[in-house]
Amino acid sequence: MNDELLPILEVLKYFRAIHIMAMLLLGFGFLMVFVKKYGRSALTATFLLVSVSIPLYLLKDSYGILGSEASPMDSLILAEFAAASLLITTGAVLGRLKMWQYILLGLLFVPFYAFNEWLLLSGGLGLVTPGSFVDTGGSIVIHAFGALFGLAVAFSMTTKKEFSAPIEADAVSDRFSLLGSMVLWVFWPSFCAALVAVENIPMTVVNVILALSGSTIATYFVTVKLRGKISAADIANAALAGGVAIGSTCDRVPPAYAFVIGLLAGILSTVGFAAIQERLQKFIKKIDTCGVLNLHGLPGLFGGLVALFAVNGISRSNQIKGILITVVFSIISGLLTGKIISFTGRRKVPYIDSEEFLLD
Amino acid sequence: MNDELLPILEVLKYFRAIHIMAMLLLGFGFLMVFVKKYGRSALTATFLLVSVSIPLYLLKDSYGILGSEASPMDSLILAEFAAASLLITTGAVLGRLKMWQYILLGLLFVPFYAFNEWLLLSGGLGLVTPGSFVDTGGSIVIHAFGALFGLAVAFSMTTKKEFSAPIEADAVSDRFSLLGSMVLWVFWPSFCAALVAVENIPMTVVNVILALSGSTIATYFVTVKLRGKISAADIANAALAGGVAIGSTCDRVPPAYAFVIGLLAGILSTVGFAAIQERLQKFIKKIDTCGVLNLHGLPGLFGGLVALFAVNGISRSNQIKGILITVVFSIISGLLTGKIISFTGRRKVPYIDSEEFLLD
Amino acid sequence: MNDELLPILEVLKYFRAIHIMAMLLLGFGFLMVFVKKYGRSALTATFLLVSVSIPLYLLKDSYGILGSEASPMDSLILAEFAAASLLITTGAVLGRLKMWQYILLGLLFVPFYAFNEWLLLSGGLGLVTPGSFVDTGGSIVIHAFGALFGLAVAFSMTTKKEFSAPIEADAVSDRFSLLGSMVLWVFWPSFCAALVAVENIPMTVVNVILALSGSTIATYFVTVKLRGKISAADIANAALAGGVAIGSTCDRVPPAYAFVIGLLAGILSTVGFAAIQERLQKFIKKIDTCGVLNLHGLPGLFGGLVALFAVNGISRSNQIKGILITVVFSIISGLLTGKIISFTGRRKVPYIDSEEFLLD
Repeated sequence: MNDELLPILEVLKYFRAIHIMAMLLLGFGFLMVFVKKYGRSALTATFLLVSVSIPLYLLKDSYGILGSEASPMDSLILAEFAAASLLITTGAVLGRLKMWQYILLGLLFVPFYAFNEWLLLSGGLGLVTPGSFVDTGGSIVIHAFGALFGLAVAFSMTTKKEFSAPIEADAVSDRFSLLGSMVLWVFWPSFCAALVAVENIPMTVVNVILALSGSTIATYFVTVKLRGKISAADIANAALAGGVAIGSTCDRVPPAYAFVIGLLAGILSTVGFAAIQERLQKFIKKIDTCGVLNLHGLPGLFGGLVALFAVNGISRSNQIKGILITVVFSIISGLLTGKIISFTGRRKVPYIDSEEFLLD
Repeated sequence: MNDELLPILEVLKYFRAIHIMAMLLLGFGFLMVFVKKYGRSALTATFLLVSVSIPLYLLKDSYGILGSEASPMDSLILAEFAAASLLITTGAVLGRLKMWQYILLGLLFVPFYAFNEWLLLSGGLGLVTPGSFVDTGGSIVIHAFGALFGLAVAFSMTTKKEFSAPIEADAVSDRFSLLGSMVLWVFWPSFCAALVAVENIPMTVVNVILALSGSTIATYFVTVKLRGKISAADIANAALAGGVAIGSTCDRVPPAYAFVIGLLAGILSTVGFAAIQERLQKFIKKIDTCGVLNLHGLPGLFGGLVALFAVNGISRSNQIKGILITVVFSIISGLLTGKIISFTGRRKVPYIDSEEFLLD
Repeated sequence: MNDELLPILEVLKYFRAIHIMAMLLLGFGFLMVFVKKYGRSALTATFLLVSVSIPLYLLKDSYGILGSEASPMDSLILAEFAAASLLITTGAVLGRLKMWQYILLGLLFVPFYAFNEWLLLSGGLGLVTPGSFVDTGGSIVIHAFGALFGLAVAFSMTTKKEFSAPIEADAVSDRFSLLGSMVLWVFWPSFCAALVAVENIPMTVVNVILALSGSTIATYFVTVKLRGKISAADIANAALAGGVAIGSTCDRVPPAYAFVIGLLAGILSTVGFAAIQERLQKFIKKIDTCGVLNLHGLPGLFGGLVALFAVNGISRSNQIKGILITVVFSIISGLLTGKIISFTGRRKVPYIDSEEFLLD
């Protein structure tokens, strides 16, 4: 391309970066407002997590640590991806951390995240051939990593009392949560297309919209089928599963595939929320507040595995290696992080603003 | 233009497409949350309507049905226009359909909508000379069509019990509704300029903002004049009438015209909400839940007719023919659609989430 | 640059203009919804203020008054800047004006604002050398001007009864307010980069995000330090102080400076909210409803003064002159405006919708 166009391409990236920023604060933030008495906390935590993780990631890049030679907008987008993954992690322990512990979580998370990203995408330690791991929109690197890390943190960050404390929504918190969900849905194409070459943006965008449409439709039918009635939380969450799952292959599959991938991810995610979550939590005696396993964990892994069959000429061994590395590394680093955080104290009561906020 | 710029122009279209997506989900969705006990349903219905109509319209285009040879981004924008018109239709019967009936409504609506679009804009059946019907931002094709179709559906979808059931708002639902309204206001310029050539985008955008400003100011004075006090619903809705009415001529009139068109549309719409709606509903014994006749029907027709006087060199006969075709066809197809839906069952109680949602 | 690229650059400006529009309506609008019983009013006032001020400013430009020869998108962005400053002014007297008095406020404000802008940025009256006053993102011209003008209006627009009336928030209004705050945070980079050359947009954007991150982190620690617990209002407001303060120098400082400027602005703003506001109000017996002095006044002045030390080759005399002109002129014109408005009547009860809205 003409050199004169380069600054314009950077501004086009900037607009996608702003869309992602809307997803981080308004999207993830409000999706987590479903806990009815913990809304101010969820939003303040979101503010802090973004404000800690993005500068930290940019700082890393400014010193060229872990091999990044990105342009300023590339760095910003990669930093936002890190923040997204961190917010997913947070969803697993939402309401059980003190406010400053979210900051600590962010400080610990970013180095681990960046290390895993480096292993998979930049050929770090020579484990995965650079450029061979298929994960454009981050099904594995962002979603699965964040979800599994969060679940691992929850292992240390769920007390007995917290395990039995109810997590309640109401009509107001449900509408705020659906607001967050819609913000994520709307801007998701920019998330997946953020670092895609301009020529491939249109097809990527259409694929993401089709995948989200597929998961939205599937969620409705499965939630009614499994629960008898509609769960607003299923809609707000599982409708997005198509976006999670299409991440790996969003710029490489035909549109019909995208729709089907979305449909299957919506089914998988809703089954997770409606049939698996409660049993799993009872079994492991740990709480995944936002159900990130169902929205980001399972659909993320599914999306990364789909690439094995849906993408021509993929290096299957590299794809599988990358997924395994992510699973193992996210869990280990998450367990460690949870342990560290647990040493720094615990809330008295989970899921309420009033413990930390000045309320009249 | 230089071929190298084409992919950039497509990405610029993409950004406008994303703005429209924000309007569809966050805008139309939250505007309909004014029904205080039906917010989760309105948002879920919005999710489903968008997720059904956009893939369906894209599917049609992928087979080249009804003459479209659009680029992927053009198709996406046209699909979003169809979804917008469908959401307008939905506003007329909001709260009186079961959730899956909204999906059915979407499936039935899109073919009719696409057919009317083809008649007016692509010279389908040779009725209107291609390119001669002036309706850049869809005052007729999108707004009037959707509103009249919806009213026609309401003919079969208003029972006696539903006719007398109150449709109530409260302080929370009003604020959510104003949120939706503001999202629509903010991104409306991208809606009207979505398919406009880049050179003409600046003037189009200024015109739309002036029209919206005009209707917003007019709404305030007329609501106070007619009701004695301000109605939040009038503000949330009629403030947008300028955007509806400027649709047809947004890229063809001088800015002063745009402001006046907006002003007049705001007056017309507020008079509709404050003075006409209740009488009309009592007269026909049917309910138009969101008052789409006042926001999209009358201002849409007004916008299409304004083109007759405000646009130089317009083919008046084609303009009038296009409007008449839309009026007749939307009503007939809406009546048919309503009849079909009415055969598939009815809600027990209108305007409440609890009939279909799992609430604690 | 190539002439063929000019229309594309205008469209890129348009997208930034739309981001600013989101800040005006959804950002400023919802930030002001923190007054729990005055939400409909705050949003309606926001609608009206934007709808009055933008056409008025565009009208001025269309006649070339006060020296502007801007392109349509430049004019639109400058008009939005005026609207932003007006909304800041409004924050000082929010809840104590009748609805139509907000319109009057807008009509009086814009000419004064445009005059001050002309003095500082276009060399009006020969006071400041054109191009020498450093204020890219408007710390002085937009934020400090709006805040001081608003405080001056409050001098006439605070009665004894209003002085002692409580301004209350609740869990719903806090979440809406945080929504507005997040919208402002997300789109702030577009505000500061709106009129920056494309080549400098990436660094500007990164600086703004770093400044906002700095103020967000600082706000949390200072609010807890000073109040013992977190104040949701501090978070919603002071988190934005970095954006206010980085305005003047956003395209001229290295990233580390930006972060520190944000950090200091966040401290300054939170100290303002937590330690200064109540004492100051008691001392002057006037109310600054939204605390615009703390969010826009002090951080704005700080941002303008920082340029003296942080920008190489700055004309210090011009910078100081510009700041002094703004301080003096905003206060005088605000006092005059407040006096005029006070002659046109007063509300019976402040801070409630029900005086002017039709509520069931």
